[in-house]
Amino acid sequence: MTETPWHHRHILSLRDFSLADYATVTQTAVSFRDVLSRRTKKVPTLQGRVVTTLFFEPSTRTRSSFELAAKRLSADVLNFAPGSSSLTKGETILDTAKTYLAMGAEIMIVRHRETGVPQAIAAELDRMGAGVGVLNAGDGQHEHPSQALLDLLTLCTVLNPDKPSIEALRGKKIAIVGDILHSRVARSNLWSLTACGASVHLAGPPTLLPLNFAEGFRNSPIPGSAEPRAIAQHDTLEPALADADFVMTLRLQHERMTQHLLPSLREYHQRFGITRDRLTACRSSVKILHPAPVNRGVELSSDLMDDPSLSLISQQVTSGVAVRMALLYLIGTRSRDAALLNA
Amino acid sequence: MTETPWHHRHILSLRDFSLADYATVTQTAVSFRDVLSRRTKKVPTLQGRVVTTLFFEPSTRTRSSFELAAKRLSADVLNFAPGSSSLTKGETILDTAKTYLAMGAEIMIVRHRETGVPQAIAAELDRMGAGVGVLNAGDGQHEHPSQALLDLLTLCTVLNPDKPSIEALRGKKIAIVGDILHSRVARSNLWSLTACGASVHLAGPPTLLPLNFAEGFRNSPIPGSAEPRAIAQHDTLEPALADADFVMTLRLQHERMTQHLLPSLREYHQRFGITRDRLTACRSSVKILHPAPVNRGVELSSDLMDDPSLSLISQQVTSGVAVRMALLYLIGTRSRDAALLNA
Amino acid sequence: MTETPWHHRHILSLRDFSLADYATVTQTAVSFRDVLSRRTKKVPTLQGRVVTTLFFEPSTRTRSSFELAAKRLSADVLNFAPGSSSLTKGETILDTAKTYLAMGAEIMIVRHRETGVPQAIAAELDRMGAGVGVLNAGDGQHEHPSQALLDLLTLCTVLNPDKPSIEALRGKKIAIVGDILHSRVARSNLWSLTACGASVHLAGPPTLLPLNFAEGFRNSPIPGSAEPRAIAQHDTLEPALADADFVMTLRLQHERMTQHLLPSLREYHQRFGITRDRLTACRSSVKILHPAPVNRGVELSSDLMDDPSLSLISQQVTSGVAVRMALLYLIGTRSRDAALLNA
Repeated sequence: MTETPWHHRHILSLRDFSLADYATVTQTAVSFRDVLSRRTKKVPTLQGRVVTTLFFEPSTRTRSSFELAAKRLSADVLNFAPGSSSLTKGETILDTAKTYLAMGAEIMIVRHRETGVPQAIAAELDRMGAGVGVLNAGDGQHEHPSQALLDLLTLCTVLNPDKPSIEALRGKKIAIVGDILHSRVARSNLWSLTACGASVHLAGPPTLLPLNFAEGFRNSPIPGSAEPRAIAQHDTLEPALADADFVMTLRLQHERMTQHLLPSLREYHQRFGITRDRLTACRSSVKILHPAPVNRGVELSSDLMDDPSLSLISQQVTSGVAVRMALLYLIGTRSRDAALLNA
Repeated sequence: MTETPWHHRHILSLRDFSLADYATVTQTAVSFRDVLSRRTKKVPTLQGRVVTTLFFEPSTRTRSSFELAAKRLSADVLNFAPGSSSLTKGETILDTAKTYLAMGAEIMIVRHRETGVPQAIAAELDRMGAGVGVLNAGDGQHEHPSQALLDLLTLCTVLNPDKPSIEALRGKKIAIVGDILHSRVARSNLWSLTACGASVHLAGPPTLLPLNFAEGFRNSPIPGSAEPRAIAQHDTLEPALADADFVMTLRLQHERMTQHLLPSLREYHQRFGITRDRLTACRSSVKILHPAPVNRGVELSSDLMDDPSLSLISQQVTSGVAVRMALLYLIGTRSRDAALLNA
Repeated sequence: MTETPWHHRHILSLRDFSLADYATVTQTAVSFRDVLSRRTKKVPTLQGRVVTTLFFEPSTRTRSSFELAAKRLSADVLNFAPGSSSLTKGETILDTAKTYLAMGAEIMIVRHRETGVPQAIAAELDRMGAGVGVLNAGDGQHEHPSQALLDLLTLCTVLNPDKPSIEALRGKKIAIVGDILHSRVARSNLWSLTACGASVHLAGPPTLLPLNFAEGFRNSPIPGSAEPRAIAQHDTLEPALADADFVMTLRLQHERMTQHLLPSLREYHQRFGITRDRLTACRSSVKILHPAPVNRGVELSSDLMDDPSLSLISQQVTSGVAVRMALLYLIGTRSRDAALLNA
């Protein structure tokens, strides 16, 4: 296992991730992916330690991925199911987190439909001196760090299967298409991809990609680097796809229609749906990413999704388990050092 | 562990099961039952491997049985809970299966209220060359193979407790009573019991047992055998019970009333309910099976259900864990050979 | 591990607990708490054995605590989720318990909103000679033994952190405040605290604390002791708090308002809410307990709850895992001896 320095007790946002952080996560995940290709896919790293998933917003897919990652590290996993919980009795979210802390939880994986909940839990636990690591598994429309990190691992693996490395991303053009405004996946990817030197082209209708959306990202420096973040934004698909190395489409929530942000799914697909025809404008080696689940025929045509020579969706899911093992390992065994370094 | 040949990558239907297949499952289950009688009831067979339950139709009883079987084999189990899932976001069932495949699931246990869903998942995974085994845990009104196989183990154990064997079933008379038309349990049992040489007598009102129901089963040959399948059907209880060795009653769904298939529960019980009195027509050694849960006083009188000298319901549940361990073992460790043989 | 005699196959009520029983549970829990402070928090005590939670009344907090305790002892845990269960198909509770028995469950942890359900399950399993231990995790308004036992461990630990012992409770004054009438926590604590020689002062409005409430408790002797149970009851807060060593507040169910048992939350808080000001009447070393989740600002002011020098709520949760490990250990490994002793 790599023993590069690791300073994060929590993983809440990728905004403050340095190039070294991305390299550490990616290299650690590659090591764990090798574990996953063995017949017995388990390591004793977190044996006897407690990982809790606090998914206030339900997501079987993401929860299963984290749960499997934790079990692969031999941790005990407690799943908090809000439906059948004390929250219906009026307990605050912080009280729920403190309860699991008191039971012995050492890592908490938090998902909530409101922005800032994982951060608030982490702040409170730090205030108490709990020494617990919090992992943001999606908060509102803010961030979804593990998704962007698994996307990163997937890209690095495509670019250099034998020795995946974030260096390979430098100078690549990545189009992110669709409902950027409401997407925590897009936001986390903006931080990670630009920090690694890729050039990100956003494309979407103005209702889903406001005029100055990229401004805040451009103005936020890459930790430990003087380089600017390379971001362009477009209100049509064509300039984003031209010579793109990768196209990342985003899930279109159906409620965007009822919110009058879009006229119809059909029109959306005509203007921003990714089809085989449109991909001809990209580089010939282009690959497609999607955080899943996909609305087939809306943001992505069904045949592209099922074409393993173009779609990276399955690799993204597979990368997810390895990346989450890496994150649990790093905050579960390296955060102590981080605490000392930060003290 | 027996090392007889095993050719099934999936267990979807018993229609194509040969006598040798039933013997292998039963002998393997007997070995695992011995494991279950130890104080430490675990074997490392599937250590570090991932078994996923995809129960689109909820069933705590069956899911718990499979989950326990998988844990007894030291597998890691991921439970897919459709309520809190991406399916509500419009993801297709095949996409759900592919997601778990990409996470590393090696066996998928599928239950769905529509006929053919496990088969469709298996076909798609095979098309992808996934090498994953699919186990049908109940599909619509079609099949429920593990239920029929646990019934088989239960019968063999009653007939010869010291050395259970399917040979003992030859020539036995087994009555299956009730809502045959809608029962996947009845269908799977028809394949298994007749293949093992038992004579099956179906009994139910014409609305729940259409006139030519048995025809399709009779006309389907037993793989590897020239013998016909022995099936009779009756619209009254008496000829089915006369000299029966075993009586299997089926759960009566209450919605059959609202569908006007039955006048009342009371009348149903009077005509087809199994009572102590009616059992006098059977052999004196007669035993009762029921897939459970039982509607007490409808298909079976309450006192019979609780009489351990007559009811095999508890033994069926116990057999269920052993049989499911056997199935997971066979498709989890022997399907590789099956793949080679089939290649 | 202490090897004092242990006679309980089930833990259903604390009414029949002797001083020796409380000492055994507390000492065993202290040993397990030491396990929990290690980096690897697991012992192989219940390796390969099956613990089932049958929570007919949902409670994530309590179920997680039991689940974690069972996992710490290396047991396999099956969670019964009534929502997605056969109960909706009309299966009786006893049939559900028998199903898990037949699957191999050796300990059942039962919670139900009706009084007496765990007792009924235990009686039926005993009648069958099942040898299974039943643990009452809350039944109606009757008892919640593990909650009172974790309260006991918490109190003993505060009184003598180095060597917690129930002896230290003798002569202490403990106020229990609030909705006594509907509280299983209060009832179980009344048995345990008075048996250990503490003096319990109940306080609540007459609608929630009927005039002769304590009578039945006072008249029930302490097993193996000639001492009376010391209980006083008050309809104002002041006499209960005067010189109290500990104050235990109870959760106020909001439905008490709609049942016209209380005029308003505000008035309740004014008369019976615990505030910093009111605590001045207690001993200076006073500490507060609450079974959680807390209605902040109703039964307890928010600042008190968050003050670690006053609130024992987190310690209660931590004690809970250790006490539940002790209970599972005692009925899982010592009940066999108990059975022999009772035979």
